Amino acid sequence: MDICRFDKSMSLFDRAAKVIPCGIYGHLSPVIRVPGSTPYYAARAQGSHFWDVDGNEFIDWLCAYGPMVLGYNHPKVEEAAAKQRKLGNCVTLPGDIMVELAEFLVDHIPFADWTVFAKNGSDLTTWALQVARAHTGRRKIIMVEGTYHGTHAWCTPGHAGLVPGDRDDMLYFKWNDILGFRKLTEDNKGEIAGVIMTPYHFPNWSDNLLPADGFWQEIQTICNREGIVLILDDVRTCYRLHLRGSQELFGFQPDLSVHCKTIANGYPFSACFGRNEFKNAASKVFLTGSYWFSGVPMAAARATVQEIKDSGGVEIMYKIGKMLIDGLVERAKGHGLKLTCSGHQTMPFVKFTDDDDFFLTQIFSAEMARRGIFVHPHHNWFISTAHTEEDVSRTLDAADEAFKVVRSA
Amino acid sequence: MDICRFDKSMSLFDRAAKVIPCGIYGHLSPVIRVPGSTPYYAARAQGSHFWDVDGNEFIDWLCAYGPMVLGYNHPKVEEAAAKQRKLGNCVTLPGDIMVELAEFLVDHIPFADWTVFAKNGSDLTTWALQVARAHTGRRKIIMVEGTYHGTHAWCTPGHAGLVPGDRDDMLYFKWNDILGFRKLTEDNKGEIAGVIMTPYHFPNWSDNLLPADGFWQEIQTICNREGIVLILDDVRTCYRLHLRGSQELFGFQPDLSVHCKTIANGYPFSACFGRNEFKNAASKVFLTGSYWFSGVPMAAARATVQEIKDSGGVEIMYKIGKMLIDGLVERAKGHGLKLTCSGHQTMPFVKFTDDDDFFLTQIFSAEMARRGIFVHPHHNWFISTAHTEEDVSRTLDAADEAFKVVRSA
Repeated sequence: MDICRFDKSMSLFDRAAKVIPCGIYGHLSPVIRVPGSTPYYAARAQGSHFWDVDGNEFIDWLCAYGPMVLGYNHPKVEEAAAKQRKLGNCVTLPGDIMVELAEFLVDHIPFADWTVFAKNGSDLTTWALQVARAHTGRRKIIMVEGTYHGTHAWCTPGHAGLVPGDRDDMLYFKWNDILGFRKLTEDNKGEIAGVIMTPYHFPNWSDNLLPADGFWQEIQTICNREGIVLILDDVRTCYRLHLRGSQELFGFQPDLSVHCKTIANGYPFSACFGRNEFKNAASKVFLTGSYWFSGVPMAAARATVQEIKDSGGVEIMYKIGKMLIDGLVERAKGHGLKLTCSGHQTMPFVKFTDDDDFFLTQIFSAEMARRGIFVHPHHNWFISTAHTEEDVSRTLDAADEAFKVVRSA
Repeated sequence: MDICRFDKSMSLFDRAAKVIPCGIYGHLSPVIRVPGSTPYYAARAQGSHFWDVDGNEFIDWLCAYGPMVLGYNHPKVEEAAAKQRKLGNCVTLPGDIMVELAEFLVDHIPFADWTVFAKNGSDLTTWALQVARAHTGRRKIIMVEGTYHGTHAWCTPGHAGLVPGDRDDMLYFKWNDILGFRKLTEDNKGEIAGVIMTPYHFPNWSDNLLPADGFWQEIQTICNREGIVLILDDVRTCYRLHLRGSQELFGFQPDLSVHCKTIANGYPFSACFGRNEFKNAASKVFLTGSYWFSGVPMAAARATVQEIKDSGGVEIMYKIGKMLIDGLVERAKGHGLKLTCSGHQTMPFVKFTDDDDFFLTQIFSAEMARRGIFVHPHHNWFISTAHTEEDVSRTLDAADEAFKVVRSA
């Protein structure tokens, strides 16, 4: 198998570092993968593959960190986007696509009575907290320790530039610890506006955790009883776990839910859904942005959700995800290695069991990159409907070679 | 002159109100124009015009509230965007366009040593505060009363859903009140991380104010002396007031500056520029978003700034803006009406002098809308390079008729 080199990526990064702090910042920072051992810049992308600036081709198991649910450059999404683009994108007034999309999505998401649109997950997870506060007249918010809800000050994983006021009213409990949650609600009775949670727990650098039996139902029961607004952060998970939102998979009903990433196959778009009870509060919390009423991402969202539905996309991702993780575990076993694939099969978190410092997992991901397979050592991967059995097969063959290197490490 | 009707806008809004809180929210809310008297939804847009869902054509003096600096669907911007789109937009890795654009912009903006990119003004005005705090190790931020810096909790013009912690460390002074600014810095000596200001004062619902002579220079002198980070919010103003940022027009040097709106002619993009002294702090404050590394808006930004430069776009907007406001003032005078056009001529704030409750100004804007001219009664307007002398002439003719109605009111 060819061994990739990343010379052009490296020299481009040297140029970038002169004019951009960190060169590449945020979740795309190469520093949080394996520096020097993966490509840093993509030249083009199509379907489930991208090509880096050195000309190497990769099977992409990150899907732009989630958004590319139908694969890059999906014809139906691009056609819908192009059609709207000719009419108008960012205009002084919204287009009728905004109303059509809202009607479509509210009909599509079972618990939703209304929706609002923005550009990014953070835009709406933060707004949802404000709606909870406006609705209840209370201040405090509960979240799970170590959960990523975005980059705003109340939740950013960064530490620099924060002030105490940013988190004055935040309370924390551990995933699946229903006793801890109940204690927080008892100790702060009548003071908690809302709780925000992802459908399951997918921190970086740690095995992902599904909800324990009855966990979500207990959360919902306590929230309903105590008048706490239950906010589902479905930014990363929506439409991969379930066609109509992750609450359907785990059997509960949120009060508010935020969708992003997969909702528009890479076009910048997010949506918050809510029940009628919260519509009045939602009307009061100011929400806007320069480009938030742009029609093209809305047309892309309409086409994306429709295509996931029409193509049985969720089932495809379930199948490919299972083939991938079953295959990886089995091949690893053949080399005497034990692999843990945690979380949901459509966005698995893959590491060597007991490899707590990720030493072996980092070697593995670097060896995979050198063989044209892009995976991440500390972040969950993402399956798309564009991934094929052939992609899985090539990935497993590369893994066989990478496992040999890991074995000798 | 034909009188427009807005029946389809109204019925679409009725549908929207069922599934979207407020129907249309934020700065596009028709409630903050003149309800029922303007179109609510655009069907398409081209150049300096848009057509509403009822088929009425409008000369658009709002330019999507700023972004459409070259007019809708500008061929060079669309060509650059289409070229990048074929390669890739939202991909697992950034494209080389990110590096090329950063180099281009840092070269273009005189004081800038580095830049970072995001999607919206708020994303980066908030981040800039955090960089100021990370750099200084101080907490407090000074801003001008009544300035719009975005929708984040520290600055949103909304009131619902906020908690005291959101603004614990904010201090306020009045525009042009250098004594007030100096007093804040003396009363909070060694505690102020930064000051954030727009290049001039353009609140809604009030005559806009340019900086007094020496105001910006005094601000800079005090900031430099006290180690306060000077942050320019150039989100609304960049590339209209000056090709290389508004600091060039008013003769000062910021430490950090945020550009948005006009930077990519409607593609969702914003940039923060900084001096080297702040690059280390900038590297520490976590900054990211699901779609922030998308190549298409970057290619659009590259083409937009280049085209403003190549076409002498700033001079065009200066000229058209002056024709428009001079013409309006003169035509108003002919009807015995006194009009105040305040702020900068490329984004004038237009109202009847002494019309403190905006009663006459609202009648005027509604009568203009009925005659195919879209203006705003409480928000500054925006000139683009696509506006023609013919657009001005038609606007003045419509104004003549609208002034008659105002006169009889």
